[in-house]
Amino acid sequence: MGRKFNQKYIISMVTKNQIKLISSLHQKKFRQSNQLFIAEGVKVIQELLDARFELEHIYETTPMFSGYSDDKISLISDDELKKMSALTVPNNCLGVFKIPPAKTFEERGLIVALDSVRDPGNLGTILRICDWFGISQIICSPDTVDIYNPKVIQATMGSIARVNCVYSDLLPILQKTNLPVFGTFMDGENIYKMDLPQEGIVVMGNEANGISVAIENAIKSKIAIPRFGDLQKTESLNVATATALILSEFRRKI
Amino acid sequence: MGRKFNQKYIISMVTKNQIKLISSLHQKKFRQSNQLFIAEGVKVIQELLDARFELEHIYETTPMFSGYSDDKISLISDDELKKMSALTVPNNCLGVFKIPPAKTFEERGLIVALDSVRDPGNLGTILRICDWFGISQIICSPDTVDIYNPKVIQATMGSIARVNCVYSDLLPILQKTNLPVFGTFMDGENIYKMDLPQEGIVVMGNEANGISVAIENAIKSKIAIPRFGDLQKTESLNVATATALILSEFRRKI
Repeated sequence: MGRKFNQKYIISMVTKNQIKLISSLHQKKFRQSNQLFIAEGVKVIQELLDARFELEHIYETTPMFSGYSDDKISLISDDELKKMSALTVPNNCLGVFKIPPAKTFEERGLIVALDSVRDPGNLGTILRICDWFGISQIICSPDTVDIYNPKVIQATMGSIARVNCVYSDLLPILQKTNLPVFGTFMDGENIYKMDLPQEGIVVMGNEANGISVAIENAIKSKIAIPRFGDLQKTESLNVATATALILSEFRRKI
Repeated sequence: MGRKFNQKYIISMVTKNQIKLISSLHQKKFRQSNQLFIAEGVKVIQELLDARFELEHIYETTPMFSGYSDDKISLISDDELKKMSALTVPNNCLGVFKIPPAKTFEERGLIVALDSVRDPGNLGTILRICDWFGISQIICSPDTVDIYNPKVIQATMGSIARVNCVYSDLLPILQKTNLPVFGTFMDGENIYKMDLPQEGIVVMGNEANGISVAIENAIKSKIAIPRFGDLQKTESLNVATATALILSEFRRKI
């Protein structure tokens, strides 16, 4: 049965087991056992295709992607998409991609290291910010949220295709690197007045607790973003906002 | 009936009509007709109390706030809180506050103007960023999301107590002000190389469309945040991130 272009005539090619597999990919353990992840919406899917992420299958409720054989694309109903989707309000297409082999990181240039960043929206936004500032490598502690979490994929808006994320224990890397290691602390040096290099590792900490004590010992240069509001009361900055402000200071002198 | 400190003995003082009123405050029209808004969680409620927002009532599932008479505080069940709450996972307390009278804005210092910012999370984050950078005034176009939207209140983390938000048509203000007016555009001047003043109005645009054409005509100084990633592909920055980067450039020279 070929692919039909009018929803009324869909002979759905999607089985209950496929829907079950795809919705299981919302969870890390099933992404890891299947080595698959999902992305939703034309824009994100197209970015991943352009970046040569290996496509497993596209499911769409209206025909949007062309040039794929029937074993790579299926027209499905809104109800079927809703069962697969990780979004509260599903889009009109969902792509299943293979998780690419983990890359190693190269000890050069400006690198961001995340010490237990837990919120998927924050990780997605940090990837987008790194992409903007031309940072191509992020090292994530093993307890940082999974980059293939559907909420991270949606928040990156395709930046995942250009920023390499490596999961690894941070401490051995920070202890043996020859690059300068920076971390943000309340009592750090004012970044606006520092002469920042173009190479180094910038460590950003957990949303609630900041940089962990073990990692703090490996930070060679403590930095701070000056605060101009009421020092007693002003809220701390969100970790993604802080990352943007710090990277801007590193880059602005180029 | 007094207030009991063990949930087993709660004689609930909350009626169905109260729950209905409170959950109606999730919507702007009912916030406006009742001149009330809600805030959830000890931290946000305490910040609003400290800032002398006028309390209507606190509902809590365990005793946390003390020193209020019974007509100002009620111990309620988790189920009752769930019916009032705007959160997916309700906290353990909800405060109802009176919307304070609208303040006027003063034409001095650094001011942020928002041209149709629609996402509550973005507005909340922008308030927090303004608070950090000591910006005490925001002018919002009438179609900007309502500052008393529960999602904005949760995202501000109390900054609403320190940053004055005025809703007003932007065009007449921008046309007659003597302050310099800045706006972010792709072809604007590199902010890293500008000599920025300590007074002015910084206009930030809508998430999808940027600054509207009508407002663009009132912008005296077009500015841009330089991008270091792949110029063809990199995603644009989120409006809250862009606001942070721009305010940092204004403030860093102090």
